[in-house]
Amino acid sequence: MLKNVDLSREVAKAEYKRLKGDAELKLADLQRQVKALGIPVIVVFEGWSASGKGTLINQLILPLDPRGFTVYSASGPTEEERFYPFLWRFWKRTPTRGRLAIFDRSWNRRVVTGRVEGHVKGKQLHQAFEDIRSFERQLTDDGVVIVKCFLHISKHEQKQRFGALRENAATAWRVTEADLRQNQQYGEYLAAAEDMLTETDTEYAPWTVVEAHDRRFATLKVFATVIDALERGVAFAGRKADEPRASPIQPVPPINAFKTTALDHVDVSLSLTAEEYAERLKEAQTRLRELEHQIYRQRMPVVIAYEGWDAAGKGGNIRRLTQNLDPRGYEVVPIAAPNDIEKAHHYLWRFWAQLPKAGHIAIFDRTWYGRVLVERVEGFCTEEQWRRAYREINAMEQQLVHFGTVLLKFWLHIDPDEQLRRFRERQEDVHKQWKITDEDWRNRAKLDQYRDAVEEMLYRTSTPYAPWTIVESNCKWYARVKVLETVCEAIRQRLR
Amino acid sequence: MLKNVDLSREVAKAEYKRLKGDAELKLADLQRQVKALGIPVIVVFEGWSASGKGTLINQLILPLDPRGFTVYSASGPTEEERFYPFLWRFWKRTPTRGRLAIFDRSWNRRVVTGRVEGHVKGKQLHQAFEDIRSFERQLTDDGVVIVKCFLHISKHEQKQRFGALRENAATAWRVTEADLRQNQQYGEYLAAAEDMLTETDTEYAPWTVVEAHDRRFATLKVFATVIDALERGVAFAGRKADEPRASPIQPVPPINAFKTTALDHVDVSLSLTAEEYAERLKEAQTRLRELEHQIYRQRMPVVIAYEGWDAAGKGGNIRRLTQNLDPRGYEVVPIAAPNDIEKAHHYLWRFWAQLPKAGHIAIFDRTWYGRVLVERVEGFCTEEQWRRAYREINAMEQQLVHFGTVLLKFWLHIDPDEQLRRFRERQEDVHKQWKITDEDWRNRAKLDQYRDAVEEMLYRTSTPYAPWTIVESNCKWYARVKVLETVCEAIRQRLR
Repeated sequence: MLKNVDLSREVAKAEYKRLKGDAELKLADLQRQVKALGIPVIVVFEGWSASGKGTLINQLILPLDPRGFTVYSASGPTEEERFYPFLWRFWKRTPTRGRLAIFDRSWNRRVVTGRVEGHVKGKQLHQAFEDIRSFERQLTDDGVVIVKCFLHISKHEQKQRFGALRENAATAWRVTEADLRQNQQYGEYLAAAEDMLTETDTEYAPWTVVEAHDRRFATLKVFATVIDALERGVAFAGRKADEPRASPIQPVPPINAFKTTALDHVDVSLSLTAEEYAERLKEAQTRLRELEHQIYRQRMPVVIAYEGWDAAGKGGNIRRLTQNLDPRGYEVVPIAAPNDIEKAHHYLWRFWAQLPKAGHIAIFDRTWYGRVLVERVEGFCTEEQWRRAYREINAMEQQLVHFGTVLLKFWLHIDPDEQLRRFRERQEDVHKQWKITDEDWRNRAKLDQYRDAVEEMLYRTSTPYAPWTIVESNCKWYARVKVLETVCEAIRQRLR
Repeated sequence: MLKNVDLSREVAKAEYKRLKGDAELKLADLQRQVKALGIPVIVVFEGWSASGKGTLINQLILPLDPRGFTVYSASGPTEEERFYPFLWRFWKRTPTRGRLAIFDRSWNRRVVTGRVEGHVKGKQLHQAFEDIRSFERQLTDDGVVIVKCFLHISKHEQKQRFGALRENAATAWRVTEADLRQNQQYGEYLAAAEDMLTETDTEYAPWTVVEAHDRRFATLKVFATVIDALERGVAFAGRKADEPRASPIQPVPPINAFKTTALDHVDVSLSLTAEEYAERLKEAQTRLRELEHQIYRQRMPVVIAYEGWDAAGKGGNIRRLTQNLDPRGYEVVPIAAPNDIEKAHHYLWRFWAQLPKAGHIAIFDRTWYGRVLVERVEGFCTEEQWRRAYREINAMEQQLVHFGTVLLKFWLHIDPDEQLRRFRERQEDVHKQWKITDEDWRNRAKLDQYRDAVEEMLYRTSTPYAPWTIVESNCKWYARVKVLETVCEAIRQRLR
């Protein structure tokens, strides 16, 4: 979930002041509703040392009624706490109905710091993830709202912040040996954090990664995240209580404005010349053909999943991928709207049924991600269903990877202008008119909704075992070569 | 879940005929409703070789419309199927809406046969359990009803059945080498089956253990189980569809008549003479005192949980347990109805808060099992909540055991006559009158409901890591010595 996070995001001072004021009023109002409805709330802050957790918590509690919350600072377990199972101290601190418990670091510490420091490993680690999921599920089943924020900064930013703190005699003491070690071992901590986020991101207690280089941006994002979670909790409890609620204060920072944006900074200008294209295409195609034989001999299954904007060039890209392959070794699986038989099954059924045999390649032209893209946006499934789908899809992909499958996922990205150009070209060219339908135009009208859905998909399903590759596709040549070379490299790495 | 299962249960021929006829009509009716409502149904049969799975499946399908179901016989994966992840072949066979898929052995084969034969171990095994839970959860989240029956027979019974088959030339071929190996390694298979049942018993796809020595009993129990599950599925879907349903055929075998009964054959006549009591009590108390010091030195936490019928003698039993202990090393935690603070938390919160420190003993006089006993029977929580509680409690106990806790659970059992005698004695003795309240009499009036709740508790929460010990308590002396000796033995085994 940390891959492709855009740490350069920031908010200007004037806008910050305006939005923050509104958000504070809204938060105070929500706290009163939470109290009235008896909803217990847990807000968890995890993230890098010096990422600003303390400051953010201070911002968050400022508008709150101090009688209604408690802040817990969880450093390592005390001597006393070591004599109990690791969740004991957190169970004790779960809030009563109507109160907020705010955690500065939490039970997740065990699976990040504890893991990197070597205290928790193998079976223990696996067990700890299971315990955490079970803990959070038990609480949310009981009506607790859990908000989890991970404050993310780069290695470089962290180093600079430590430096600034140490230069000042008044703050130097705040940088500990452990902090400096974290910066030195940034890569290991990053991998552990990524695993933690993947293993414990669920529809009942989802993670929000907060881009924390800019304090103003981070503050507003945390506010928006907490507001969104409380509003949904209040709406849910309100529906059950069947009471009308008045919620007069609007507007607040809309949560969508702060969602992760992996697509904003994709460099669609990347391109190849005709010469480069011809040369690298041929080389990669030849290489893939050789790899195809090795895949077969070693009985390795390969799944290549294509998603992307309409007119991003999936068809042509797939053709170049398969052009030189032995047709007995691969299959292209085009995914359209489900037929009646498919609709009468679980939405994942048809994908399970079309998995490749070990030793074969299956190329999916559109995929199971339809659940969180078109089905979400068009309302073909309920919000509960698509929120659950991230976990279901991650579970399916993990099963494939455990079986030994090489799984590649490509998002073919073009910008809206390029899409419009291609749509028009298709309409004007009699040979391409079949490619463009009213549906394409309808989808384009919902570009913002689709974009939100794509961003959330890239964010929640980029796992360590099955990351997304974003393919810059304004230049089709570039896109084709990037996919081919990525596939070759992934297979090569996995062959014995 | 296989501990304490009473395999001697049987049904007389005349009763069988009557009940079976009713059940068949009911099943046929339910199948039509399932079809009309578009509910997909999966029925899984697991269990020992020669336990009668084939015969039972034949009985089950007889009343069904053959156009509405498919029977799948899952022997080991075929050569072809080995080229896919292990759930692939089961995903493909999930039923369309409105149809039944009946599995003669299933995905659980991997974690029993596959495990004993050594193909699946360590991380793979852990992963397989997780995959199975995820698979079943995804399906039930999508509206599938899953019924899982485990046919249980003893080692002796299995051997006799194999013998009978082999004596007859016409059936000898049915007994394979693998079958005979299963009988020889019965203990290993039993342990693997017990683990499988514990790991995959959930509120969304619960297991039913079927006592399969008597074919008639087993058949009726399977019928009752399937009918119960379908009725609940239909009621749930019907509530959603908001359609009135006519279901004229009554009565059918009530599911309660076929629930596991661990308590029926408890030998409450077990007793000690005054002399035996004095001697063994003293010996065990002295021993426990010594163990208490070792527990402290080795920092081992011990949890002793007491549950039992009113007037079964918990108080006196606990006093004898602690009589000789160093009071700094133990604490007795009496559990009454939750106070206001406790009610404002998750029901497990107060138990987490009172766990013993490593090196100490906590003795709970009544426990977290109140959720599935008094709260269930008195309606203090919803059916959804107490059904979920078995899994939540098992998860908590597993966390304790993983931490190194010695966890003992005692059910103090007296028969209803003995309880009545004690109630009367209490009422007549001025010194004991305080012990008996109107509530005790009210509880006694609901004896059958409590008994069902106790049976289900013993069944669903007797796990390999935290089994229940049923304590025959008509003779208090016997009960006290049994608890003391059991505690001493459990601690001794766990000390280094």
